[in-house]
Amino acid sequence: MDPADRPVRVALLGHGTVGGALRELLAHHRDHVRLATGRDVEVVSVLVRDTARARPGLDPASIAVTSSLDDVLAAQPDVVCEAMGGLEPARSHVLALLDRGIPVVTANKQLVARHGVELFARAEQAGAQLRFEASVCGAVPIVRMLRESLAATRIDRLLGILNGTTNYMLTSMASTGASYDEALAQAQHLGFAEPDPTEDVDGIDAAAKLAILAGIAFGTTVNVDDVDASGIRGVRTADVAHAEQLGACIRLVARGERADARAGSDASMTLDVAPTLVPIGHPLATITGATNAVLVDGTPFGRVVVQGPGAGGPETASALAGDLVSVLGSEPSFLTNDPHVAHLATAAPAESIRRWYVRMQVADRPGALATVAGALAAHEVSIERVLQERADGGEATLVLTTHPCPQGALHAALAAMPSQDRSIFPILDDTGA
Amino acid sequence: MDPADRPVRVALLGHGTVGGALRELLAHHRDHVRLATGRDVEVVSVLVRDTARARPGLDPASIAVTSSLDDVLAAQPDVVCEAMGGLEPARSHVLALLDRGIPVVTANKQLVARHGVELFARAEQAGAQLRFEASVCGAVPIVRMLRESLAATRIDRLLGILNGTTNYMLTSMASTGASYDEALAQAQHLGFAEPDPTEDVDGIDAAAKLAILAGIAFGTTVNVDDVDASGIRGVRTADVAHAEQLGACIRLVARGERADARAGSDASMTLDVAPTLVPIGHPLATITGATNAVLVDGTPFGRVVVQGPGAGGPETASALAGDLVSVLGSEPSFLTNDPHVAHLATAAPAESIRRWYVRMQVADRPGALATVAGALAAHEVSIERVLQERADGGEATLVLTTHPCPQGALHAALAAMPSQDRSIFPILDDTGA
Repeated sequence: MDPADRPVRVALLGHGTVGGALRELLAHHRDHVRLATGRDVEVVSVLVRDTARARPGLDPASIAVTSSLDDVLAAQPDVVCEAMGGLEPARSHVLALLDRGIPVVTANKQLVARHGVELFARAEQAGAQLRFEASVCGAVPIVRMLRESLAATRIDRLLGILNGTTNYMLTSMASTGASYDEALAQAQHLGFAEPDPTEDVDGIDAAAKLAILAGIAFGTTVNVDDVDASGIRGVRTADVAHAEQLGACIRLVARGERADARAGSDASMTLDVAPTLVPIGHPLATITGATNAVLVDGTPFGRVVVQGPGAGGPETASALAGDLVSVLGSEPSFLTNDPHVAHLATAAPAESIRRWYVRMQVADRPGALATVAGALAAHEVSIERVLQERADGGEATLVLTTHPCPQGALHAALAAMPSQDRSIFPILDDTGA
Repeated sequence: MDPADRPVRVALLGHGTVGGALRELLAHHRDHVRLATGRDVEVVSVLVRDTARARPGLDPASIAVTSSLDDVLAAQPDVVCEAMGGLEPARSHVLALLDRGIPVVTANKQLVARHGVELFARAEQAGAQLRFEASVCGAVPIVRMLRESLAATRIDRLLGILNGTTNYMLTSMASTGASYDEALAQAQHLGFAEPDPTEDVDGIDAAAKLAILAGIAFGTTVNVDDVDASGIRGVRTADVAHAEQLGACIRLVARGERADARAGSDASMTLDVAPTLVPIGHPLATITGATNAVLVDGTPFGRVVVQGPGAGGPETASALAGDLVSVLGSEPSFLTNDPHVAHLATAAPAESIRRWYVRMQVADRPGALATVAGALAAHEVSIERVLQERADGGEATLVLTTHPCPQGALHAALAAMPSQDRSIFPILDDTGA
């Protein structure tokens, strides 16, 4: 059998929230994975700390569960996904795998931030890939953006909301007037904050992410301890209110800036994490809840901002899976003669069911609204709201919104109306949440 | 000489706004390109329609300028960047290059939208890469996000502001009350709109981009003519005002949605471009001016939004350059022992010059402000604004903001103050524009 035809053998290190979600993703999205890689992908081995613990969904009959890296190696994985967290034994395991030329994708932020230089030196020596999108900001593809999309540009500045827990707490303090303690208790209750929230609230998590991103963006090695990090423990409800009076909101902003060499000083970079007053209207001020966002300024592209879920098992697993696909090295296809491609038909526009905005200029005489309403009713289009009707030179402006209805029914209802000057626009039914 | 050590030979098809900017980027960012690819990259051949026309910055003595593809082939390029636009001769040229196994990166949206299936079939036959990030939304890395980062996930919906010209016009109508004609004239004056704005204002440009993105996102082939596209010619100033009354703004939204197969109907997709009422607070409502944005909903990652400059020579060239780096196939490094890495020192936090927010609880007695102001002045920290001072149980809250000053000076000034309960946060000096 051609090796390219046999299933890809994947081993997982760790089967917690992220590792378990990755195993599920690979099973549930088998078709998408096959489309992306051209091959089937199978989890053949899972390393856990305690093999005795029951793991729902993980059937030891089909997947070898072990606490020994030797067993993982014996399973001959083509690629290994590390989602065990912590520095050891993760570091030793990853080094052992890379030394054997086995590519690794990891979700381990502290591992990459603390030992990235060592790991990458070994990966380069062995010619094995090491990818780490999932180690920074969950599903937000910022690592790939910096390493690949913007690879040939000069990046001058990064501004990020890199920690969802603190962003959730800060936006909660602003919207409900909650104190720091109340916001923390609520975040813990909802699972956004750990029982020991130190890493999040003291800016340690954001500092590690910033160190990774700045290293890529500025083409340098970064010592995570060089990040000037402070957290949000000192943010008072009064500060949130005062910020608002100043036309700003408070966000835990991670900042990396490059300063060029000048007379009397070498080139350098500034790296800090601090509760920061962000002017309303700034892209980072719109980032609420547990969302992460990174703003990248550079030359000659200008500014790019990406935002998305910064944590969570399935979200982080999505990033691991994207790296997994890249490691497998298949060229992304444009979906031509691939037998896995679904040739989707395009739905007829007339059948598109949406809410609609309608503006019509109608004759300013009694019964104008009744005529329109009657025509809509005849086509089973239900009016949600009539905004206003005002006279202007013998004409009235009629503005209404509808409940969801097919575009075809709306157009049919209005076809008989005499108004030539009218607008029919859909309304986006999406809260933005 | 090891082939991996010799410079990469690049040919450009087209030397207009984008092609010229790419040539400049490769020259000005030589160090970044070398860092990303491990090699020098040289433009060896430029194909233009009219070789007689003078091209500032393009020295025919060092770069062969020709109107013949044979000359381009004779220059033995390792990779070709197509930025000539139009369907022919771009299509024939790209096919001829791919047939010879020469990888191509393109910025040509209509070419990919109209002939993508043919081009990719030929690219796959020849084993040559074809990349097209620059063909959709300039510097916004949405193609890579869909093809690589989210490759193993299921994408359910795309919502995009894919045309900067119309977004500029719509936000201008909303902010200044300008009519459609006035907004168009202004956009043309500023170079955001072409003398013939048809492609932009009628939604043709956005439809082509949506066709490309939906093909990737939904794993299907898309006929660009199947996109139900309408433009903004019919948007009246009154509509903009009414939308505002309804708590929304108008954006030209490109939408792609997948509908699963159900009883009585096959799986299908909805593809449309229309002026759409977008509720204030929705991520797309915050996209103003010529910026592009794409929102991607999917499983299991949730929602990711990316925004940035959707057009412009240098911006689009950045995307071409990112694809160029990927085509060259060097594994992105983590910048370890690479001799091109600049080892940047981290600037001392005390020297970080920013504007600052300070809140202090001070004794509510005469002279409290004078004491603080005096301490700040002694350290040359200049006060920008004193927000308020209000009594509460024998204490007053003093809130002030400073002009830019070093963090060290501010902390030194406040070190002698008795207040224990205080906050010192930086203020983000970034308009968000």
